[in-house]
Amino acid sequence: MKKALVLLSGGLDSATTLAIARAQGFACHCISFDYGQRHRAELAAARRVAANLGAVEFRVLRFDLAQLGGSALTDASIEIPTGGVQPGIPSTYVPARNTIMLSLALAWAEILDCRDIFIGINALDYSGYPDCRPEYLAAFERMANLATRAAVEGAPFSFHAPLIDCTKAQIVQRGVALGVDYSITVSCYQADGEGRACGVCDACRLRRNGFSAAGIPDPTPYFSA
Amino acid sequence: MKKALVLLSGGLDSATTLAIARAQGFACHCISFDYGQRHRAELAAARRVAANLGAVEFRVLRFDLAQLGGSALTDASIEIPTGGVQPGIPSTYVPARNTIMLSLALAWAEILDCRDIFIGINALDYSGYPDCRPEYLAAFERMANLATRAAVEGAPFSFHAPLIDCTKAQIVQRGVALGVDYSITVSCYQADGEGRACGVCDACRLRRNGFSAAGIPDPTPYFSA
Repeated sequence: MKKALVLLSGGLDSATTLAIARAQGFACHCISFDYGQRHRAELAAARRVAANLGAVEFRVLRFDLAQLGGSALTDASIEIPTGGVQPGIPSTYVPARNTIMLSLALAWAEILDCRDIFIGINALDYSGYPDCRPEYLAAFERMANLATRAAVEGAPFSFHAPLIDCTKAQIVQRGVALGVDYSITVSCYQADGEGRACGVCDACRLRRNGFSAAGIPDPTPYFSA
Repeated sequence: MKKALVLLSGGLDSATTLAIARAQGFACHCISFDYGQRHRAELAAARRVAANLGAVEFRVLRFDLAQLGGSALTDASIEIPTGGVQPGIPSTYVPARNTIMLSLALAWAEILDCRDIFIGINALDYSGYPDCRPEYLAAFERMANLATRAAVEGAPFSFHAPLIDCTKAQIVQRGVALGVDYSITVSCYQADGEGRACGVCDACRLRRNGFSAAGIPDPTPYFSA
């Protein structure tokens, strides 16, 4: 069975991505990141999702972004915006986050002798983060294939973003068809200790709209309406 | 004064790179990485070098590669080769190391509002690591300028590798001319707790040859000949 490395945040998109990789027949090694994010409940969700969708392995790697600050997700003194998704890049943008995560994933993939890396980024119903766009991922792949022993010795890495062009409704429909249990996932930027969602941050709004547009009941536990 | 972010390992190349950035008039913020490397003495050396060369700030960021293994530098059960530099990529290669370090540096640079990032990589008298080559760094820069808010909003990052084409002898000569005190730097892969070098690992051999070819006395403290 071919190995895949799947970046798993515990949210809706990455859970769906894992289900897609499993459906394509990959043995999935999943990686989550503890980077000082305020919504740490997503790490427990990622572990549940990995087990629920039959991953062969789940690991949490740590890196220290909270010491640098610079984002509402890593600096508790910056409030999470809850007024609705605005144009432009929001304060929840974390500098270089996907680049750091993909780099650590690349290291583990090379060690595992795995050449397929899956990430649930999406450039349609998304928060405007530059590191979620297809041109970014293509540039990362090109760089990765110059960076590593594996690639230099002739076995290049492929980065898969199967949701990159999907609406949130399409993602939900695809996941439901593959048996994803979205009630155990956590997307909220300020989820409480039990993983319950606020319902009003950008991540919650995009997710709620996705269920609504897909005509599928939203199974998310909320701590407020 | 324009800000630069300088990756500092505590070794000869990165100390010289910091001296070059300072000579170009940059206010230098230095970053080192604690990634579970066995030669942790380099972190103390990096702190000394930053102070000695007038950096405005020095930080150590942690990331966890030792949990993954896969390199003689992060897995104590793999011996450091000491028989001389061989063709090909050695066991001291750390998967994706420069990519992870540059990614974390990119995050900090974006937060600092700094657009110039210096790294002491060198593709001539080096250990054969793929992530030390100019084509790698160019690909990283291109990716970084698609990844970040800073770049998307029109202020791209420049990655500087002033030593990339230099021989080790040229690096030593340049550093001495700029007043670098190499006696406080640590290059050795198995330096002891006091920062003394083995003299026979690839890093030591390349460094010794550099001083010798430059006709400059080697100030390195060794624990063996």
